[in-house]
Amino acid sequence: MGEYVDYSLSEAEQSASSGNLLSYLPLTAFQEVLKGNFSPIEKTALFAQMVRFNALYMISCAGSGHLGSSFSSLDIVSWLYLNVLQPEDRYFSSKGHDSPGLYAIQTALGILPFEKIHALRRLGGLPGHPDVNTPGAYTNTGSLGMGVSKAKGFLFADDLLGIGKGRVFVLTGDGELQEGQFWESLVTASRLRNGRLTVIVDHNKIQSDSHVSTVSDLGDLSAKFLAFGWDVVRCDGHDFQALQAVLGATSFDGRPRVVIADTIKGKGVSFMEHTSMEKGQEYYQFHSGAPTYENYKLASAELFTSIQARLSKLQLAIPALTEVCADLVHTIQNTERMIPIYAEAIIEQAYAHPNVVALDADLILDTGLIPFKKEFPERFIECGIAEQDMVSQAGTMALSGLIPIVHSFACFLTSRASEQIYNNCTQGKKVIYVGSLAGLLPSGPGHSHQAVRDITAMSGMPGMAIIEPVNATQLKAALRWAIADAQESAYLRLTSIPYEQTPELARISTFKSGQGDVLQLGDEVAIIAFGPIMAFQALEAAAGLAHLGISASVAVTPWVNRLDPAWLTLFITPCSTVITLENHYSDCGAGNFYISRMAGLGLLKNRRAFSLGVDSIPACGRNNEVLLHHRLTGDALVAEIMSKLTLSSDSLADTV
Amino acid sequence: MGEYVDYSLSEAEQSASSGNLLSYLPLTAFQEVLKGNFSPIEKTALFAQMVRFNALYMISCAGSGHLGSSFSSLDIVSWLYLNVLQPEDRYFSSKGHDSPGLYAIQTALGILPFEKIHALRRLGGLPGHPDVNTPGAYTNTGSLGMGVSKAKGFLFADDLLGIGKGRVFVLTGDGELQEGQFWESLVTASRLRNGRLTVIVDHNKIQSDSHVSTVSDLGDLSAKFLAFGWDVVRCDGHDFQALQAVLGATSFDGRPRVVIADTIKGKGVSFMEHTSMEKGQEYYQFHSGAPTYENYKLASAELFTSIQARLSKLQLAIPALTEVCADLVHTIQNTERMIPIYAEAIIEQAYAHPNVVALDADLILDTGLIPFKKEFPERFIECGIAEQDMVSQAGTMALSGLIPIVHSFACFLTSRASEQIYNNCTQGKKVIYVGSLAGLLPSGPGHSHQAVRDITAMSGMPGMAIIEPVNATQLKAALRWAIADAQESAYLRLTSIPYEQTPELARISTFKSGQGDVLQLGDEVAIIAFGPIMAFQALEAAAGLAHLGISASVAVTPWVNRLDPAWLTLFITPCSTVITLENHYSDCGAGNFYISRMAGLGLLKNRRAFSLGVDSIPACGRNNEVLLHHRLTGDALVAEIMSKLTLSSDSLADTV
Repeated sequence: MGEYVDYSLSEAEQSASSGNLLSYLPLTAFQEVLKGNFSPIEKTALFAQMVRFNALYMISCAGSGHLGSSFSSLDIVSWLYLNVLQPEDRYFSSKGHDSPGLYAIQTALGILPFEKIHALRRLGGLPGHPDVNTPGAYTNTGSLGMGVSKAKGFLFADDLLGIGKGRVFVLTGDGELQEGQFWESLVTASRLRNGRLTVIVDHNKIQSDSHVSTVSDLGDLSAKFLAFGWDVVRCDGHDFQALQAVLGATSFDGRPRVVIADTIKGKGVSFMEHTSMEKGQEYYQFHSGAPTYENYKLASAELFTSIQARLSKLQLAIPALTEVCADLVHTIQNTERMIPIYAEAIIEQAYAHPNVVALDADLILDTGLIPFKKEFPERFIECGIAEQDMVSQAGTMALSGLIPIVHSFACFLTSRASEQIYNNCTQGKKVIYVGSLAGLLPSGPGHSHQAVRDITAMSGMPGMAIIEPVNATQLKAALRWAIADAQESAYLRLTSIPYEQTPELARISTFKSGQGDVLQLGDEVAIIAFGPIMAFQALEAAAGLAHLGISASVAVTPWVNRLDPAWLTLFITPCSTVITLENHYSDCGAGNFYISRMAGLGLLKNRRAFSLGVDSIPACGRNNEVLLHHRLTGDALVAEIMSKLTLSSDSLADTV
Repeated sequence: MGEYVDYSLSEAEQSASSGNLLSYLPLTAFQEVLKGNFSPIEKTALFAQMVRFNALYMISCAGSGHLGSSFSSLDIVSWLYLNVLQPEDRYFSSKGHDSPGLYAIQTALGILPFEKIHALRRLGGLPGHPDVNTPGAYTNTGSLGMGVSKAKGFLFADDLLGIGKGRVFVLTGDGELQEGQFWESLVTASRLRNGRLTVIVDHNKIQSDSHVSTVSDLGDLSAKFLAFGWDVVRCDGHDFQALQAVLGATSFDGRPRVVIADTIKGKGVSFMEHTSMEKGQEYYQFHSGAPTYENYKLASAELFTSIQARLSKLQLAIPALTEVCADLVHTIQNTERMIPIYAEAIIEQAYAHPNVVALDADLILDTGLIPFKKEFPERFIECGIAEQDMVSQAGTMALSGLIPIVHSFACFLTSRASEQIYNNCTQGKKVIYVGSLAGLLPSGPGHSHQAVRDITAMSGMPGMAIIEPVNATQLKAALRWAIADAQESAYLRLTSIPYEQTPELARISTFKSGQGDVLQLGDEVAIIAFGPIMAFQALEAAAGLAHLGISASVAVTPWVNRLDPAWLTLFITPCSTVITLENHYSDCGAGNFYISRMAGLGLLKNRRAFSLGVDSIPACGRNNEVLLHHRLTGDALVAEIMSKLTLSSDSLADTV
């Protein structure tokens, strides 16, 4: 069960239902069922189908989200909420990306305000991955493999504080079990003898878009858990009688129990069920992203038919569906996308350099490696969700004369494998790291996936050039340089969403160490921007400043931690204020590097310099909402820069 | 098998043999044995005892190093080198701290120049943990759990490049198996069917100073490996006949083999063998650090007696031992140590704050937690070598209302658990992280243990105050503040070696957010120093500058990423050059933060600012050698600062 979304699709494509009619079941429909006098199994089976209906609505409204694993887990989670969980118990999902399913349950039960179903992945709404600021969320998840560790922390605290003897239920994916932390966490958990910990593996056999067995086979899962000292039971995760038996009871001696629940990814909608995949079909289609409107209608109809049938059988009235027109997603124009370009570029380079190999951690689609794998199967290594293992492998490949290119999302690659990257650096051989999904956007998945500290993480690596290309041409040049010319390792920081371009951004093609492209020249404020999102906003800001009579220079550079003093000096000379603008935390990224260097070069006399970027935990929401929330749109930047200018002139006048 | 040294001992105590006579077996003695016509078992048994003799010498010379696991592994590694390894094969130790044993073998066999036995942990000598710049070292190890991943990288590269079909042997510790990466790496390894990978677990039952079974029991190790799809054999790691059988052959179907070798920590010297520990004795005495001179003499005599007996039996001449006087270690005066102070401080705070709990990752001695554990056993959590698991547990403890204090070496805590720390930060509840062994020194262990990028790693964490206390008083104040007053999380960066103090450093007691103590006032250069090592060198540098007629101010602040503008402005006002001085990489640490802030405050007009610190991969050697190597001694700093001054005045004159 990967956690990963195809962000290579444009937002418009993802939200194929945008502007179309979507329908959901009203709260009263759930209330009717919940107060009905049926068997727990009948009630839960009906309830689970109903929450599937609303989860489908939520994801379609949001334009993204994880259908496949919401559906695979919903029978289990519904059973827990309706029949097992007591007030002192806790349930959370370690994988976290099945949150639409959980929210659908929680809104139906009044744990969350019902109207939140319209606000999945919206600012102030329900975050793409769980966050403790949402009622009913016990801990933040979304980065995989942490669930059992977190459960142990809760259990320990309860005991010490004497604040309860509740049970803790943790749902995990199956692909998630490839993360080392998961096995690390099992060891001391096996000491527990209080009967309070139950882990449920949503064993739907598909991680992200591929079969777990082909990515990194889990082998005999029961034997593994047994060997780690756990109580193991296995059942059909859609069989409520079986769930009743295994979730109601605990192990005979109180040791932690793992329930391996065999489930079907996409369960509940025939054509979304992974078991309906054609023989030989390599990629599952409904892991993440909203369905097309056509698929939405088909799925919605199938679910409603099944709900109607169950309601009729129980002699309940068929509720009226509420129909709403899905919000139109703001669609941007003149866009370019980096991942498809990268997919081409790495193949081109691989033909020129036979020692190039590519490593992936279960993100073959999102990192653009499907064509590479087809072209060079023997030079492609699928590591599964195992970033530490992947990076250490790359290190010895480099020692053997290969040029390994390591891929994952920026947030996970630079963070989970931090120690392994450093270890590679101390070996002095070139390894190339490519982090996609870098920066604040897309902001739908939430802070677990928004990489705004990856520059920091990579800054501490000796002999590591950090490069953030601004367009496709520069991306190709950067990859070529990293492979063919660089004597050092490199980190390529890639934007995954389609980004707006202007003619001047599209024209950028230079790639000369420490230099950038000057897009416009002014004589008051010099803005140095990094990456396509910020480059565009820098130009917007400069236009806004011009309206206010402030003349701004704008330069864009891909070199996050390399700086050519001559180039920079020339660029900032006329200006008394320098602004660095990055798609990253502002107080530990490119800005700090640039400003420190300028200070050493004596370039800050009679100048102030300010680093702008993200300055709080990234918000979840639509891209435009979140960019504004963090005051990084052109207009917001104008206001921010104007306040700095006042400061600069006041204080310089003061003391010069 | 922990990798950790008791750095709370002073260097003088560690090197108890300093200035005393030590002896070693000359190269000719090994050559005689190697050319002898005995059975492989007789030859290897004798050779292994002889290399133990020289490993003991090397560690005693160096004043530190790991005896216990060098000795437990030496029968296995000797067998490999004398009887198994072919030119195309590779052997490396994943734990790496058993390197003195390996070096003793390699010097005896001519893989390393023999005279290197005198240069363990010396600059230009043999590093404390393996480094690829040493002949015979295939990869850098020392940070645990990476071995199998690294082996897979070698095997893949060999296949792709068609450069060999050699076997890869990886030695691991048993405590090391607590690291998640180890299990993460087993999964895809189990696919291999080429018979080339063999992992040997040096199962000596002791990790660092404690029994593995009490720290974090491994359970049924064979069952675990079997469940992960490996071929498993178990044997007595001191029985050469058994080793011959299991290491010579591979699994019947080519799958990777793990040899669980039951060994005795300290094997070869009766009183160092862990099996000689008294019943109930909690801590093993010979994991790391040089033995006392008395113990050295006893061990050396016992080993020599056993060697003599074997030589006589084989009718070989008894070689003359070469005696040398161990180098006197530079002993520093007026020292203070942080760890014992910390040990008191946390107990004091724990009495005042019942919700304080302490978590440890198998470094209870080095992090100063033994007294805490005795005082508050129910509030102490031993997590084993499992930093990710430890940190995630702490996060949910904090959500439950506890104040968890998480301990490890700075290098591992901030790096291996980077993602987990960030996840905790996004939950908004206070967790305190305490990283000992921070900075360039001690420099004997080498780059795997020298934390010079931990500030960088922690800089990207939202709501995290990074604090580096300069003395014991400030350490206590910092801990009190972090527990009682801070609304945010904190990272305490602790120096583990004893450090020199001056009266003015000893007097520092203020602890006010963003402020520091001004130790002296000058009007040309303002030096802002962080931590006790750099504070002392800053004073030395200031004295050196005074001799050259340059007047320097010196301030010391514990606030790495918090800054009080009023305080700073006042401090730097008279000076035209600002120097930040940190025990960390200079281009991504405290200096960059301070200089960027100064730029924003307009404090750099007519001033230059330079960040000084470590600017290359940390060298291994004695502390004073390495400080000088990195140009961070007072004298070296004078030269560095003078060059910056020339630059400043030239260029300011130029353009102001």
